[in-house]
Amino acid sequence: MPNLQTADRIAAQLAFLIETDKLKSIIRANVLADGSRFKNTAEHSWHVCLWALVFADQSNGANIARVIQMLLLHDIVEIDEGDHPIHLPHDHDDITAKEAAAATRIFGLMPADQDIAYRQLWEEFETGKSKDARYAKMIDKAVPMFLELSNPVQTQNEHDILRGILETGRFADLHDDWPELYQHASNLLNKLRLAPMEPTASRLRFVMEAATS
Amino acid sequence: MPNLQTADRIAAQLAFLIETDKLKSIIRANVLADGSRFKNTAEHSWHVCLWALVFADQSNGANIARVIQMLLLHDIVEIDEGDHPIHLPHDHDDITAKEAAAATRIFGLMPADQDIAYRQLWEEFETGKSKDARYAKMIDKAVPMFLELSNPVQTQNEHDILRGILETGRFADLHDDWPELYQHASNLLNKLRLAPMEPTASRLRFVMEAATS
Repeated sequence: MPNLQTADRIAAQLAFLIETDKLKSIIRANVLADGSRFKNTAEHSWHVCLWALVFADQSNGANIARVIQMLLLHDIVEIDEGDHPIHLPHDHDDITAKEAAAATRIFGLMPADQDIAYRQLWEEFETGKSKDARYAKMIDKAVPMFLELSNPVQTQNEHDILRGILETGRFADLHDDWPELYQHASNLLNKLRLAPMEPTASRLRFVMEAATS
Repeated sequence: MPNLQTADRIAAQLAFLIETDKLKSIIRANVLADGSRFKNTAEHSWHVCLWALVFADQSNGANIARVIQMLLLHDIVEIDEGDHPIHLPHDHDDITAKEAAAATRIFGLMPADQDIAYRQLWEEFETGKSKDARYAKMIDKAVPMFLELSNPVQTQNEHDILRGILETGRFADLHDDWPELYQHASNLLNKLRLAPMEPTASRLRFVMEAATS
C-alpha cells in the first residue's frame, strides 16, 4: 500500500490531469494546414511545443525545457474561458481577470507546490518579458501563421488579410525579433495562390473579414 | 537577408513541422474522458507530455526534459502508418518495418543533425530500455487507461474488459513498476459505475469486445 501522503498527492495530480482533458474540446479560430477543420487547443499545444523544440537553434539561448513546460500549460485557462481570437475585439481587463480565476481553479487542483510553480510559469508566459517567454510567444504566433500560409486562399481579400497580419498584425513583431523566419513567411505569402476551398476551411477568413470590416 | 545556410535550415525545419500537422488527423481507438469522441494522436501527444511533467516526482529520476522530447515525437510515424490499437492482433514485424520507413521519411525532412538526433530519441522510446524510455512508456500506457476509467461503462462485459487490461493487459506492468499509480487505477475500476452512454462513446468497447471474443 502506498503511504497516505503519496496517495493523496497522486489523487490531486490525477484530478488536474483528467480535468485538462477538456482542452481537447476547446475549438480555436484557426484551421489545420489541410484546411479540413478548426483545431483544438490541446493539439495546438502539442504543435507549439514541437516547433519550440525543433527551432531551439533559433531561440537565442532560451531554456528549451522551460519553454516547452510553459507551452504545455500556456492555454490551460481556456478550459474555463475558451479561446479569444486575437483579431477580434475584446475587453482585455475582463479577460485577464477571468483567466486569472480559471488559473486559480485549474492549477489549484494540483498539490500546492505544483500549483505555485506552474502558476508562476503561466504568469511568466502571459507577461511575456523573460527570454523564455519571448521565445514561447514568438512560436505561439508563428504556428498559426505558417499553417494558414500552407493553405491556398480563396479570394484576394483573404490574401490581403493575411498580408495585414504579416505586416501590421500579430506576426509583425517577428520582422525585427526573428527576421529569418519572417522572411520565410513573407516568401510563402508572395507565392500563395488563389484556389477554391471547401466552406469549412475558409470560415476563419469570414471571421477575420467580419472583424476587419 | 538571412544567409543561405540559415534559410535552407529553416526551410527544412518548416517542412518537417508543417508535415507533422497531419498527426492531428490520425484517429485513435481511445475516447476523451467525457466520451464525446475518439481522440487524435496530436492531442494525445500533448496530454502524455503534460502527464510526464506533472508526475515527474514519481519518475525515479528520469530526465523529464528528455522524456518530454521523446513523447512529443513518439507517435510521429503514425502520420504514414496510422495507429495500431494494442488490443488488436497485428503482424508486428511488418509494422516495425513500415514504421522505420515512416521515420526515415518524416524525420528525414529535417536538417541532418536533427534527423539523426530525433530518430535516435524515437528509437530509444521504441526500444523502451532506458530509464527515460521506461518512464515515457508507463505514461503512455497510463493516460488512456485513466481516461477510460473517468467514464461510466455501459455493460458488465465492458467492465470486465477494463479489468482485463488492468490485471493482465497493457496496464498490468504498472502493478510492479508503479504500484502507487496502479492502486489508483484499481480503486477507480472498483468504483466504476454502470451507466448508459451515447453510442459514440462506447464504440471503443465494441472494438475491444470484437478483439477479445
